[in-house]
Amino acid sequence: MRPFHEQLLSESKELWGAILHHPFLQETASGKISAHTFKTWMQQDFIFVQEAIPFVAVLLAKSPENLRTNFIQILSGLDQELGLFRKNAQAHGVNLDNLKAAPTCHSYLQFLMSTAYNCSFLEGFTVLYSAEKVYLDSWMEVKKKLKGKSPWEEFINNWTSQGFQQYVDWLAVTLDDLAENLPLRQIEKLRELFQTTGRYEYLFWEMAYREEKWPALGK
Amino acid sequence: MRPFHEQLLSESKELWGAILHHPFLQETASGKISAHTFKTWMQQDFIFVQEAIPFVAVLLAKSPENLRTNFIQILSGLDQELGLFRKNAQAHGVNLDNLKAAPTCHSYLQFLMSTAYNCSFLEGFTVLYSAEKVYLDSWMEVKKKLKGKSPWEEFINNWTSQGFQQYVDWLAVTLDDLAENLPLRQIEKLRELFQTTGRYEYLFWEMAYREEKWPALGK
Amino acid sequence: MRPFHEQLLSESKELWGAILHHPFLQETASGKISAHTFKTWMQQDFIFVQEAIPFVAVLLAKSPENLRTNFIQILSGLDQELGLFRKNAQAHGVNLDNLKAAPTCHSYLQFLMSTAYNCSFLEGFTVLYSAEKVYLDSWMEVKKKLKGKSPWEEFINNWTSQGFQQYVDWLAVTLDDLAENLPLRQIEKLRELFQTTGRYEYLFWEMAYREEKWPALGK
Amino acid sequence: MRPFHEQLLSESKELWGAILHHPFLQETASGKISAHTFKTWMQQDFIFVQEAIPFVAVLLAKSPENLRTNFIQILSGLDQELGLFRKNAQAHGVNLDNLKAAPTCHSYLQFLMSTAYNCSFLEGFTVLYSAEKVYLDSWMEVKKKLKGKSPWEEFINNWTSQGFQQYVDWLAVTLDDLAENLPLRQIEKLRELFQTTGRYEYLFWEMAYREEKWPALGK
Repeated sequence: MRPFHEQLLSESKELWGAILHHPFLQETASGKISAHTFKTWMQQDFIFVQEAIPFVAVLLAKSPENLRTNFIQILSGLDQELGLFRKNAQAHGVNLDNLKAAPTCHSYLQFLMSTAYNCSFLEGFTVLYSAEKVYLDSWMEVKKKLKGKSPWEEFINNWTSQGFQQYVDWLAVTLDDLAENLPLRQIEKLRELFQTTGRYEYLFWEMAYREEKWPALGK
Repeated sequence: MRPFHEQLLSESKELWGAILHHPFLQETASGKISAHTFKTWMQQDFIFVQEAIPFVAVLLAKSPENLRTNFIQILSGLDQELGLFRKNAQAHGVNLDNLKAAPTCHSYLQFLMSTAYNCSFLEGFTVLYSAEKVYLDSWMEVKKKLKGKSPWEEFINNWTSQGFQQYVDWLAVTLDDLAENLPLRQIEKLRELFQTTGRYEYLFWEMAYREEKWPALGK
Repeated sequence: MRPFHEQLLSESKELWGAILHHPFLQETASGKISAHTFKTWMQQDFIFVQEAIPFVAVLLAKSPENLRTNFIQILSGLDQELGLFRKNAQAHGVNLDNLKAAPTCHSYLQFLMSTAYNCSFLEGFTVLYSAEKVYLDSWMEVKKKLKGKSPWEEFINNWTSQGFQQYVDWLAVTLDDLAENLPLRQIEKLRELFQTTGRYEYLFWEMAYREEKWPALGK
Repeated sequence: MRPFHEQLLSESKELWGAILHHPFLQETASGKISAHTFKTWMQQDFIFVQEAIPFVAVLLAKSPENLRTNFIQILSGLDQELGLFRKNAQAHGVNLDNLKAAPTCHSYLQFLMSTAYNCSFLEGFTVLYSAEKVYLDSWMEVKKKLKGKSPWEEFINNWTSQGFQQYVDWLAVTLDDLAENLPLRQIEKLRELFQTTGRYEYLFWEMAYREEKWPALGK
């Protein structure tokens, strides 16, 4: 039988295709993306990484004892990733202080936190795998199609590095192990969460590309 | 000094105005709303009430002992409200089985759950007050401007009833009590959550009116 | 195959025997229990029921949609049970204000809350079943051996009533359903939680009988 | 005004005295402690450190953004501390596999998890400070009274090191900052949690010294 993570991916081919062909990624590869758009993404993804730490922390709290060291390393990795953002923000004159999450960024983060707290460890773990797999595949797509030198290459390199690939591979095989022999009703829930995560990922590129804002209300 | 709940409302006047003038509410009052649009709302709000139960349950878990009986009554009230939806759905031929939350409905519910779990009781309580106050004011606006008999009057009556008004008043005075003498940093957080809730409420009417869908991806 | 709840019970025969033969229960049945000891239990169990509400509330938050109405009823039942304590406390001159949980009462409640939050719904549900089943069987033992009229008969009647029996039966068959086709690693965790709950129940009778106190430290 | 952490300590003088004079610590210092007793502690404290990781992880999830890096370091520190246990367990022939938490170890850990999840960040933080401060002071007491060379000196050195002192100092000043200008009702809750933590710490030494067991029931 096919490993569980491959089943998930093959059921989401259409969604994955839509993500990889999203203009944000294609234009980042071709160099056509406007600096303003990329910087908008940089700000929102900075918020996202910051607030992914609480999400991973709740997963750690629920994780089986033998995975805890891995999760502590994931947390350290996210903390270091913030440094990558700060360094590039400075180089490109991007403000990272007092940012406000745009609606999709906010919603996606609420989904992560709500799932971590209200669902089982494995359900939260599936969401983490889906999110990280989208990131790996998205930036691999950019790297593959990259024309010339990109001002954003540190980001491209970050999520296509061997270390990041190994991390996502580890998530995949660990998910396969954890999902072994589960009854169908539990598997169905994992499938749904995997897809929902992918959809929020798609909407995240949309948000950055369209420079989404909250409805202009109040202060 | 003005009661805290009044401060919150006066800071959100513009947002409240945008909510009350939303075409969904105005057209429900004037009778111009299409049956399809209203039924879309009915389905999404059914999901919302169903999933508000877990939100209120986590608030109950964190509530001070003297408020627990009230919270158990709120839970019973939500459970009964589902009956109102089922009855009207049957009368109007609306399907309530195997519904899928549209993006904004999903996001808003994630925000409720995430706040209940990750924030303090009072922060979650402020979100509950904001959501219920929007509902009271929204349906009062519909009732005030109502032209003739509406096919949706059971909904209008539900959230403009004396019982519902008293419940929202209780939320307001209880919030005032709980927020007494808090340091500014805590008050600021409550303000922000109050506004964010109102914004999701605005987007919820938008979602219903525009019949929002997830991007057409995968199954 | 034997229903899952029967497997759990048959693996815990020795523990159940120790609980049912505990002097607190035997002396309550024979009438030899001192009023002071029973009143100590009454105070601690009042705290326990009060704080079981947050436990059940978190279970409700995680429960599948089709069980939520049941959980709301369980919460209402606990709230009413507090009335039983208040009524009997008044009749017997027992103070219920500003009580302090004794160590075992405190610990057991922490175990309930921690399990509800950090574990899966089914794990928390198993703990609830274990706790309620001990109560049913304990008070049935008292009722069976009861000599003459007891000053505590309202408590005896409460947890041996037909309504309470039906509730515990419902917990049992629902647990059987939820545990169907689970992999062994998940079943093992349920077994362990079932036993741990029973052990805290045993210690709870010990606490009441020995009038356990925190080490006499500080104020 | 005295810093808040000093107020807490001065209100707990009697409790602190009882902890520091506990025979477990005094006999560890004098060398009279039996190897079996110390090894029992070593096993239970290994479990404690393992399960303190989920506690700190939930605190991290709720922590303000500016404290997250610190919390990730605390998690790494706990993970490394497990290495100290493993190394000493091997040197002294102590088994660390398939251990079972004794009642007090289990209860104390449930209290940590329940507080982290159900209470505010600051309430959980106060518990962390209390627990770590007891450890610092306890092992400082051992170090101060130490007669000759101890077989357990790596443990003594670990919790009296400059690094550990600085960490506990950081907890103290951070607690002072976070508790500034809080209303009395919030301060009272912090006081109670500080004391309850200290009491569980006292009981933990008792558990180790008396080699506490679950009532001999079932398998």
